[in-house]
Amino acid sequence: MNTAIILAGGVGSRMGVDRPKQYLVVKDKPIIVYCLDIFEKHKNIDNIIIVVSDEWKDYVQENVEKYGITKVKGYAPAGRTRQHSIYNGLLSTEKNTEGTDVVIIHDAARPLVSDKIIDDCLTGAIEDDGAMPVISVKDTIYQSKDGKSIDNLLKRSELFAGQAPESFDFKKYLDIHNSVSDDEIATTAGSSEIAYRHGMKIRLVEGSERNFKITTIEDLETFETIVND
Amino acid sequence: MNTAIILAGGVGSRMGVDRPKQYLVVKDKPIIVYCLDIFEKHKNIDNIIIVVSDEWKDYVQENVEKYGITKVKGYAPAGRTRQHSIYNGLLSTEKNTEGTDVVIIHDAARPLVSDKIIDDCLTGAIEDDGAMPVISVKDTIYQSKDGKSIDNLLKRSELFAGQAPESFDFKKYLDIHNSVSDDEIATTAGSSEIAYRHGMKIRLVEGSERNFKITTIEDLETFETIVND
Repeated sequence: MNTAIILAGGVGSRMGVDRPKQYLVVKDKPIIVYCLDIFEKHKNIDNIIIVVSDEWKDYVQENVEKYGITKVKGYAPAGRTRQHSIYNGLLSTEKNTEGTDVVIIHDAARPLVSDKIIDDCLTGAIEDDGAMPVISVKDTIYQSKDGKSIDNLLKRSELFAGQAPESFDFKKYLDIHNSVSDDEIATTAGSSEIAYRHGMKIRLVEGSERNFKITTIEDLETFETIVND
Repeated sequence: MNTAIILAGGVGSRMGVDRPKQYLVVKDKPIIVYCLDIFEKHKNIDNIIIVVSDEWKDYVQENVEKYGITKVKGYAPAGRTRQHSIYNGLLSTEKNTEGTDVVIIHDAARPLVSDKIIDDCLTGAIEDDGAMPVISVKDTIYQSKDGKSIDNLLKRSELFAGQAPESFDFKKYLDIHNSVSDDEIATTAGSSEIAYRHGMKIRLVEGSERNFKITTIEDLETFETIVND
């Protein structure tokens, strides 16, 4: 059984609009619904858990009903960091689903993920311990401990920018979260980081520029263009 | 004496338009002229050398005259890689300017660099051996030798994306280029990389999101919005 955890807990917006980006309405439909639709229709996804802040929970539930998202098995409260939200989603998965082998964790604000990326992630979580889509890094990246002078050169060909969704062997990933300190969860920058650090083998799969996270007004305009195309 | 080397050698465009991005006309003026204007007006820049492909040289020269860019002391042919173009610019600086202590190398397609970034780079090249503006990295970056599984985690707080302009002690930087193999020049990904590798101390200075390189249609639209503002 594969459970998708959809992260919709963010309450801020860098766009200067009145609501978090995942709830902006494009062509009469909130962005989160575009995302939920993909997992609802994907034949290898069995359950959906939505992580959402209290103030938006009713709104999300109404839309889940309105748009017929039938796989939703539970909700989880937003945490104080993204990784805390993930932990809450894992606990809700444990409580509200049965027999989940793999979790696949996605951002509500990445509404253009492809079925193939989802499948590649699911396969990676079974054959290895987890998987993450990546894209190549365009900038020249330098390493500096103090931010004042270069300490180390990094080969661009060996650098990859992580996207979502990230998939994991559910039991192993939950066990890590149950065993580590709250501080370690708080300082985790990427979902795969904490998994890798604790010995899980994470496969890199091919991401896509199209699978961008809607963060800026330009991103929103790009999404609108694609949807209206 | 400080010499600016402006890189305008690119002949391609990812935008599907008829000319390289640095020659696109925004509000009646080619993008390269916006860039040249900044160095022309900057009180601490003495000379300008322009690296340009043969087919665009007349066009650039006409615009240099038309817009009164008086600091231009010479041109250099485009090389087969960015770093080869830089080397050509260094050789032209040696030949066409006198007493250059510091070179500051900029992309024609970054027309919004601030006077402060230029000054910080010039100071860095004098007090250290060189300087480069950087901005923080937004993505979570993973290291993988084979592109298939994670090999190493990188701390986001220690990663910096390099921008232009990059400034260098002219003599030291030219000497490196005169002494290394053509292959090393060809495989250099960033101008500061080759300097750091050969023992020059490169200072990181604060870059700016506004100092972006015009690469995509969205970048061009952003630039047009700023210029028309």
